Amino acid sequence: MVLVNTRNPLNIGAAARAISNFGFKHLRVVNPFEAAFREARSAVGAAPLLAQAEEFHSVADAVADCSLVVGTTALSRRNPEHVVRNLPEGGFLIRKRLARSKVGLLFGSEKRGLSNEDFSYCHWLLSIPTREAHRSMNLGQAVAVSLYELSRDAKRVRPSEAVTLARAFDLERLTSLLLDVLHSSGYLKSRNSEDSPVRSTGDEERVRRFVRRMNLSSADAEQLTGMLRQILWKVSA
Amino acid sequence: MVLVNTRNPLNIGAAARAISNFGFKHLRVVNPFEAAFREARSAVGAAPLLAQAEEFHSVADAVADCSLVVGTTALSRRNPEHVVRNLPEGGFLIRKRLARSKVGLLFGSEKRGLSNEDFSYCHWLLSIPTREAHRSMNLGQAVAVSLYELSRDAKRVRPSEAVTLARAFDLERLTSLLLDVLHSSGYLKSRNSEDSPVRSTGDEERVRRFVRRMNLSSADAEQLTGMLRQILWKVSA
Repeated sequence: MVLVNTRNPLNIGAAARAISNFGFKHLRVVNPFEAAFREARSAVGAAPLLAQAEEFHSVADAVADCSLVVGTTALSRRNPEHVVRNLPEGGFLIRKRLARSKVGLLFGSEKRGLSNEDFSYCHWLLSIPTREAHRSMNLGQAVAVSLYELSRDAKRVRPSEAVTLARAFDLERLTSLLLDVLHSSGYLKSRNSEDSPVRSTGDEERVRRFVRRMNLSSADAEQLTGMLRQILWKVSA
Repeated sequence: MVLVNTRNPLNIGAAARAISNFGFKHLRVVNPFEAAFREARSAVGAAPLLAQAEEFHSVADAVADCSLVVGTTALSRRNPEHVVRNLPEGGFLIRKRLARSKVGLLFGSEKRGLSNEDFSYCHWLLSIPTREAHRSMNLGQAVAVSLYELSRDAKRVRPSEAVTLARAFDLERLTSLLLDVLHSSGYLKSRNSEDSPVRSTGDEERVRRFVRRMNLSSADAEQLTGMLRQILWKVSA
């Protein structure tokens, strides 16, 4: 990650934070606005990463050990000299390259982005797909979005905790209880006399489907069963 | 996009900019630090989007018309009550939903994130996969990364002819009714005397989450509301 001519200390700090968040290691700065770099470095809570940022006086020096150099652009003007790839596509190529060598990703100044000279060090350009009418992103946000894409799939993404779904047996018990409650409360009418109430098959199926649609976990089914038992006890009292 | 208890005007501004960059339309704020909201709004070059931001006094009001509510978390503590999905996976689900209804994406305050009460309004939680040792992202960057993922392939996603899901407003009404039934039936104990029963917040949050997990369609929510009304009438008789 190479920041070229950055002026705002908050943006340097934000870039450093994103680098750390997404597990990257190196921040290089080329001719930062000097006060900004000092201020960012001395900021309370500045990441260790920022303290280790390397400073260079030219883009050429900053990317000297990289096998692939990619410049970022908001593409507000056309750049016929370079291939421009959007982030999802370009990110894939960068990830592949990162697996075996160093890649330099360049971000320009807040006001003007990278210059044509800066671009000339780049193998190709990367653009974050934004809305035509509002292309230009905040620098810190552009860095975060790019690194998010570059870290995609890098580590095993955390699997969401698997939910154990209720078994059909539990759902059927639940259905039966719910039917009892609905009859006892008068929501469903029994078609027969009270001593041998016959349930309508239509109602029963409707309630059964209703319960299935809830897609309950095993724990939630148990909880709902407990609720209905208590309600039934009260309703029938 | 809903910002809850945001304190820093720069972050509100950054969120607005990312929303505009990625072609989203709505910013809602819940109890922003007042001076921050005023400052962000009056900032030079504040996006029109920021001028149209809507202010709410509760999360419930801010998400009332959303059929899916997702909270963001850095997952620094485990949250066994909710399914937590990482951004690539969860983003896919949100994109599908966005094609046919409103989705509320909640971001908490810079210091403490979302509270457990805020979480209780959420169907599930979303987490940006960051490095274990440095999980917590800057708010403006987290917003940008999330919206980048949500705008991915936006045009290719087609609305599936599917069920209309219940809005948060309906689910809240349902939650409230269920709580009444559970108290009236003795399943939940009121902590106070019978003439001024005070509900336990813990119970309330648990039931609210329980109702969200059912993932009810609009029609099913209406049906369940009808069932509960009848049950409540019977139980309180």
